[in-house]
This record gives sequence, C-alpha cells and structure tokens, in this order.
Amino acid sequence: MSETRPADPADPEGADTVQQLGEDVVLAALREVIDAHNAHNAPDAHRAPAPPGRGVPVGMPVGPGDDAAVLRLEDPRLVATTDTMSQDQDFRPGWWAYPAEAAHGVGTKAAAQNLSDLSAMGARPVALLVSLTLPPQTRLDWAVGVMSGIAAAATAPGAAGCVIAGGDLGSGDVVSVTITALGTPTGARSLLRSGARPGDQLAVCGPLGRAAAGLAVLEGEVSPARGAESLLEACLDAQRRPAPDLTAGPRALASGATAGLDVSDGLLRDADRLARASEVALVLEEQSLAEEITALGRLDAHSSRGWVLGGGEDYALLATFPGEADLPEGFRRIGEVRSCDGAPGVFAGGTVSAGWDSLRQGEGPASRSGSQSCGK
Amino acid sequence: MSETRPADPADPEGADTVQQLGEDVVLAALREVIDAHNAHNAPDAHRAPAPPGRGVPVGMPVGPGDDAAVLRLEDPRLVATTDTMSQDQDFRPGWWAYPAEAAHGVGTKAAAQNLSDLSAMGARPVALLVSLTLPPQTRLDWAVGVMSGIAAAATAPGAAGCVIAGGDLGSGDVVSVTITALGTPTGARSLLRSGARPGDQLAVCGPLGRAAAGLAVLEGEVSPARGAESLLEACLDAQRRPAPDLTAGPRALASGATAGLDVSDGLLRDADRLARASEVALVLEEQSLAEEITALGRLDAHSSRGWVLGGGEDYALLATFPGEADLPEGFRRIGEVRSCDGAPGVFAGGTVSAGWDSLRQGEGPASRSGSQSCGK
Repeated sequence: MSETRPADPADPEGADTVQQLGEDVVLAALREVIDAHNAHNAPDAHRAPAPPGRGVPVGMPVGPGDDAAVLRLEDPRLVATTDTMSQDQDFRPGWWAYPAEAAHGVGTKAAAQNLSDLSAMGARPVALLVSLTLPPQTRLDWAVGVMSGIAAAATAPGAAGCVIAGGDLGSGDVVSVTITALGTPTGARSLLRSGARPGDQLAVCGPLGRAAAGLAVLEGEVSPARGAESLLEACLDAQRRPAPDLTAGPRALASGATAGLDVSDGLLRDADRLARASEVALVLEEQSLAEEITALGRLDAHSSRGWVLGGGEDYALLATFPGEADLPEGFRRIGEVRSCDGAPGVFAGGTVSAGWDSLRQGEGPASRSGSQSCGK
Repeated sequence: MSETRPADPADPEGADTVQQLGEDVVLAALREVIDAHNAHNAPDAHRAPAPPGRGVPVGMPVGPGDDAAVLRLEDPRLVATTDTMSQDQDFRPGWWAYPAEAAHGVGTKAAAQNLSDLSAMGARPVALLVSLTLPPQTRLDWAVGVMSGIAAAATAPGAAGCVIAGGDLGSGDVVSVTITALGTPTGARSLLRSGARPGDQLAVCGPLGRAAAGLAVLEGEVSPARGAESLLEACLDAQRRPAPDLTAGPRALASGATAGLDVSDGLLRDADRLARASEVALVLEEQSLAEEITALGRLDAHSSRGWVLGGGEDYALLATFPGEADLPEGFRRIGEVRSCDGAPGVFAGGTVSAGWDSLRQGEGPASRSGSQSCGK
C-alpha cells in the first residue's frame, strides 16, 4: 500500500506547496476551515468584530489572528491537556492510500487523543489550540486536510461547542501536530487516576486492541486472514482515524466512578498507572476479555491476546465504580479492586494462562518485581 | 563557536540519554523541576493530594500525571496562545558554547515568546503546558535544562503565580518544544490588533533589532567590530534567551492603549498587521529610531537599519495610545495613526531615506501595492 501510492505530505513535483504559496495564503486557507468549523459547532460563539473604539470587551472569543485567543468559560474550572503527533514517530503517510485521507487522518487522530484525555477527566471540550509544523514542500491541500481532520474530531458527540481557538504555523523537516485541548468539568469533581478503593469494580468502555491490530497490519507485521474484511477495516480505522467516545468519561463520573483514565498506552500499562495512583491492586478477570481476544484472533490468532492486553491508542475508558453500582451504558466489568498493602499493581484473576506472565514482563511498567504478592 | 564546542542535545558517546534511562526516569527528573518551580512561583497553588475517596474536588490544580491538568481560574475569561520552537528552524545548538546554556536558552525562549503573546493581549500568565519532543540520544541534563529554562522564563516580573501545569514527552529526530500559555486579562478589555484610531500615537516598549543583530552574529553573517562587547552580549542574549517585559501589555492597557501586539516578526511587518486589523495608516517617524539604528551600527553599520526596522524576535510591545495621552513608563513615541481610506499600511514620515522603499519591498507583507497613496 505504502509503496504504490504514498500519501506523503510533500510532493516535489507538485505545485501549491506551502513554501510557494507563502504563510498568508496558507493561513487564509486554514482559517476558512477553522471559521466553518466554529460557525457550525459553536454558532453562539461569534468572533469578536473589529471594534470602532478601544478594543473589544474581553469575553468574546477572538479568533486566530491576534496574539492570543480570548474565551469566556462558563466555569472558572479549567481542564487542560497537550499532546504532539509527529510523522514517522506516531504515524507514517504510507499508512494511507491517498494524501487527502492521510492528512485528514493525522488531524483527526491528533485531536482525538487530546479530546479523549479531557473525556477521561470527566470534562467536555471547549477549545482546541493547534500548533502545526510542516515541511516547506507540503502541499496546501495536505495542510488544509489536517485542519479538516481536527475539525471533524471536534464535532464528535460530546464535543458540541468546541471551537478551534487559534494556533501557530511553523516549518520543520517532518509534519508535526501539537494540540492543546481545553475543557470544562461536567461535574463537581474530576475523574482522576487516584480514587479507586478496594471493593470497587474495574470496567472499560470501548473496544480494546483494535488500534494495535491495525498498526500491525499497516506495518506489515501480520497479513490478516481472508474473511475478516469488516473487522480489518474497523481496526485500520481505530489506528488511522480513531473516534473515541467523548461522553464516556462524563457518563462514568455521573455514575459515581471513583477513578479513571483512557487506555492510550495499553490496558496493562494504563491499569498499572491507575493502580499505583490509587495505591490499590487491580485484579483483571481475564475471562471477561476472552470474547474480544477471540474476535481479534480472526486477524491473527497469535497476536490477538497481546493486542487486547498490551495494545495502545484505543482510547477506551478504563474506570472504577463502587462495587454495588450499576455500570453505565457501554461499560463492561473486567475486574475488581483490592487492597495491596503498599505494593500496588495489576494482577491476573480467574483463568490465568501461561502467556500471561511473559506478556506482563514485556510490558515494562506493568511488570514490577515484588508486586506478585500484593492483594491476592 | 559551533564547530569547537557544539552544544548538541544528543551526544552519541554520552551516557544518560533519555532512551537509556527511559520515560519514567526522564519524567521524574522533569517533574522535579516543575514541582520546584510551582512551589516557588505559585506557593498557594498546591497540587491536589491523592484523595481517600472518590476523586478530588475540581478546582485544585492537579499536576502532571493525570490525563489533564485541572486549574481554577480567578476569572472565567481565558487568554490562550501556543507556539512551537524547532531545532534548526528556530534555533541551532551551535549558537551556544555549552550544552547547559543551550538547553536553558531553548526553554527560556520557547516560554518567553508565548508569555510575550499573553502580555501583548494585556493578560498575565497563569499556566504553561509543555509538549517536549526529544531525539532518543538526548542527554537527560539537556531535557532538564530545557524545563529549567521554561521555569526561569515563567518567574520573570509579571509572571508571578504562573505554574507549569503539565505536558507531554515524545520522541523525534530533532528537539522541538511546543508551549501553550494560558492567562487572565488584567483589565476589562483585551489589547487587540484592531482598535487603533486616527489621531492616536504609535509607541513601542523595549529595544528593537537586537535579536536580529544577535542572529546575524551567531549565523556568521557579520563580524562585529571591536569595542562593542557589552552591546554584543545584549544582542546575543536577546536572540538566545530573550526576556520580554511581561508587564508592558498590562501597563499599556491600563494607560488606555487602543491596540497593540508584540514585535515578533519585525517592526514593519507587525506594524502592518496592526494597521490592517485596525484599518488605519501608521506613519512611522523614522528619526525617532535614529538613535537605536546608530547604536546597533557599532556592530555593523550596513545592517543596523534593517535590524531595527525588519528584525524579528525582539518581543518589544508595539501599541497605539490616544493622541493626548501620556505614554506609560518605558514606551517611546515612534509615529502616529492616520485614516487610510480603505488602504491600510505602514508609511514613512519625517526623513525618508533612499533605503526605505527597498527595505519595505523586501518585507513582504509590509510592502503592498497601491498602499503608497493611503493616509498621506
């Protein structure tokens, strides 16, 4: 795929590169995408008009163009996160067949991972800031495609009202997109990694392992068996243009979740972070994941267990709930919280297969010496 | 300088690279810098303790570690800006003699340019988010030095209370630092580019041309004459570790400024932006810059005029004030605002030298066809 139709941002033979067109033309094109998004997704947040007098009253959102954006928050509590996605580190243009798909996917994924972080705190997004680094040979339509992908992610359910408030355009050897997402808490508390208590249920919302399966296919590490085309597409989408459920965190919080985070680095690794922040033992009930592992096994039977337990970038929401609570819609129980006597970590409960420990040892932070005795 | 003692972030022979040490060690080292900064600069903003129950009340700042930072703003009005600084595009490690200087300078400059944007809106900074991309071979002390430089910039006068609220650490071919600065307006209004009115005075706060002079020396384009060592040092500092006056924007706003922005891309270019946003003609009184041009001429007589009129990255504050107003301390008049009949731009008043037009033509956005007749 990547050899025959590379979707590189730079095309040495192409016209309309950002270098040829110049910053003003590129910014104007990006601005069109931003203005259209803001008008559609946040129709009440008009850009402040040029004032006749001494500056505009603060509080109206001021769009890109001034030194900074000005927003009025409904709530003085601000939730903020930032993340960078770099070409060849976090994505390869060759993953896509066409440039337009690649650009859109890169923008979508850069925004989605930040929006997922806000959701995982129980917040809803109100604004994105975008810092876009492009090689001089980048085609204008690639730059516009990235911003369109960002806009697409910011119109997902749960992101209503989220504006693209401004940003920065710079030059570099490869494409790099840094997004800062700003949000507002949806409840009286935020959903933190700390807060899980012995007796809580451990639950997850959203598929696991799909992005890792998609990555393995895109990188040529596995050749999926025939007959699983729709699953393959879902896995490729999970890697190339993820669409995390941005309402999962707020729903969890409203249902009394005690702790939570999104699964961006793999279930075991992220569960370990929650366990350590909460100073508890998380006992995974592996049989609860059996169906998911079997399903992904249609792509590659030898890899599916590793994808589900260790694969990152799914942006599923991992959360803990009081033991007696009904789980909110979309969440499924995958384990329980126990006390750990000072050695927090993740442990296998139920049917522990031979592959389990070797996988944990390969997971770095999830395999900690001395933690085997904790909470069992 | 760059050939004998390169201050590269990567040292193939060195131990203690971020790759060798791993993410957890690097994050812990960066976290120490961040915690020390926050404790010193914002002693009242304690990090939320791990809660015994169901999460902490939102409103306490939660430090790096969770999916996002949570801050409580004193004011629901939020001013936000973001900017990326990339190795070889925005700085070269060879500009510095020692790695520690380089890392500190890169962090300082990355933060300063964002903090200056907030000041230019009349805002004071409350939080920085840092997305740091490092090559795997980067030495740990280089990474720590960048964060220390960021912390140093965030303790400048005008930045009291500004925390480093969190960030992201990633891998890439070269060092790249993206900072998002969040601030609070200091007055009822923000200082925008629009708002200048005919009859206003045009004024600037801070030196002009020094960063450009420093860049020319660092890039080997000029060899400064002897006898100007202290001026040379000031110019090198202006380029390598700028210290913009973060109180300039709030002071301008308090004195009734009608419009303003920081001079990040050169006086003529940024003045043109203000003129266009305000739909006015800005008439520069070039004689007001003569002393500055003469002074920088001690480094290179042929370049000093271009440095003062076209050099970027000085982060001086350019602002307009009512014609009858006393300028606030630190500001000097450099021109006036006139009506432009629909063709805004920057024009020379007073003594117009032969070099003026050619310089404007070289400045791109500042030389617009048809604007010569406007407002004169």
